Amino acid sequence: MRFISETTSNGVSERLFTLGEISGVLWTPADAAGSRPLVLLGHGGGQHKKAPAVLAHAHHYATTRGLAAAAIDAPLHGDRPKNEEGDRLLAVVRERVAAGEPIAGPLAEYNAALADLAVPEWRITLDALQHLDDVGAGPVGYWGVSMGTGIGVPLVAVEPRITAAVFGLASHESLADAASRITVPIRFLLQWDDEMVPRASGLALFDAFASPEKTLHANPGGHRDVPALELESSGRFLTRHLVEAYVAAA
Amino acid sequence: MRFISETTSNGVSERLFTLGEISGVLWTPADAAGSRPLVLLGHGGGQHKKAPAVLAHAHHYATTRGLAAAAIDAPLHGDRPKNEEGDRLLAVVRERVAAGEPIAGPLAEYNAALADLAVPEWRITLDALQHLDDVGAGPVGYWGVSMGTGIGVPLVAVEPRITAAVFGLASHESLADAASRITVPIRFLLQWDDEMVPRASGLALFDAFASPEKTLHANPGGHRDVPALELESSGRFLTRHLVEAYVAAA
Repeated sequence: MRFISETTSNGVSERLFTLGEISGVLWTPADAAGSRPLVLLGHGGGQHKKAPAVLAHAHHYATTRGLAAAAIDAPLHGDRPKNEEGDRLLAVVRERVAAGEPIAGPLAEYNAALADLAVPEWRITLDALQHLDDVGAGPVGYWGVSMGTGIGVPLVAVEPRITAAVFGLASHESLADAASRITVPIRFLLQWDDEMVPRASGLALFDAFASPEKTLHANPGGHRDVPALELESSGRFLTRHLVEAYVAAA
Repeated sequence: MRFISETTSNGVSERLFTLGEISGVLWTPADAAGSRPLVLLGHGGGQHKKAPAVLAHAHHYATTRGLAAAAIDAPLHGDRPKNEEGDRLLAVVRERVAAGEPIAGPLAEYNAALADLAVPEWRITLDALQHLDDVGAGPVGYWGVSMGTGIGVPLVAVEPRITAAVFGLASHESLADAASRITVPIRFLLQWDDEMVPRASGLALFDAFASPEKTLHANPGGHRDVPALELESSGRFLTRHLVEAYVAAA
């Protein structure tokens, strides 16, 4: 893991890093010393590691909650190179949108192809982050909706270090199987009028998680209309579980 | 409104009252002076104005939130007299339970019959409560699930003084029409494995509210398994809306 820049603003230290092909960013409270819980932030499709929604969550965790947060560019996103197969899969999605046809199928296929690459990248990033003095090997949470769920569900299904997760805005088709292997506490966000995810398919994905503790929060509006209060609420949820685990391990 | 007893415990003043046929209870912070927002608490079927769930909410609002809270016995419940028609409707529900048949239909009919009586009783109780110095004519919220929703939805549909409400654990059949006339912010609790309310019917009732701001919270488990954290969360929701309205009116 090679740090290529460090800046501080509004009480948050932001460090850009690379790790082989991976490009990422780590946020910590500016005065951080010692280990602390870590939240992995998965960005949405077409976005990148410093997209506005990711930054809002990163600053929330570092300032309001005193935790560390990290994001990496998904394959084909942000600073990562594009490739032909990715372009082909995206073109299918765009043709469907243009034709007014359902996109859940091709979108799930695109996200699944990215997840195959992204899951091992997240895991080696987590290995490296846990060696840092101001992160450490404490409890880890995951937050990511839409494509962040398309990658996050397969990740959390295989990564035992992640002990709580926020997902949402995703269809069940390609994810139900991985979801059925997840047992950690889950918060699931669903938009009641999501134009990209059929309501029944989102409800089916929530249903698929094996987690004894899981809560669905559904709000009116489309894919991009998640109420701002859900940031605060998911921050409370993740922090409660991660800090409880941190105290229990101490 | 005639107060028949006043006791104080754990920082909460509890006053039992009668108002004509109505038997009720008012909780305020023990040191309350001046007006404050009021939360009306609707108990569940077979319960009464001081059932454990009602008391837990009443103490939460009076201590953690500094608000006033009130409950009345629903018709045929608590200190209220039974009658033949009520017994007949309940007998139908019990026969269905014994036969392992769906009860949503007869239960909705029973709740609708009670609501016809309870709605005007809540409204005259509210008139009287708002004349008290330590309640006043400020913003009013409603919390009630199961039968508390069966009565609460028709109440909130006709009572403009109630500006935010928590509902849940109820079917849409006899309530969707009243719900479609409600536009205030709504929190809706649904139990994913509710043995008394079919999942699709609960989702349909959430769907029916005309409120631009409404949030569904769904959790695994049966009708009586609402997680304790939802008390805290709905307390935060109601208080935010009532206190905002209170400050805006000041």
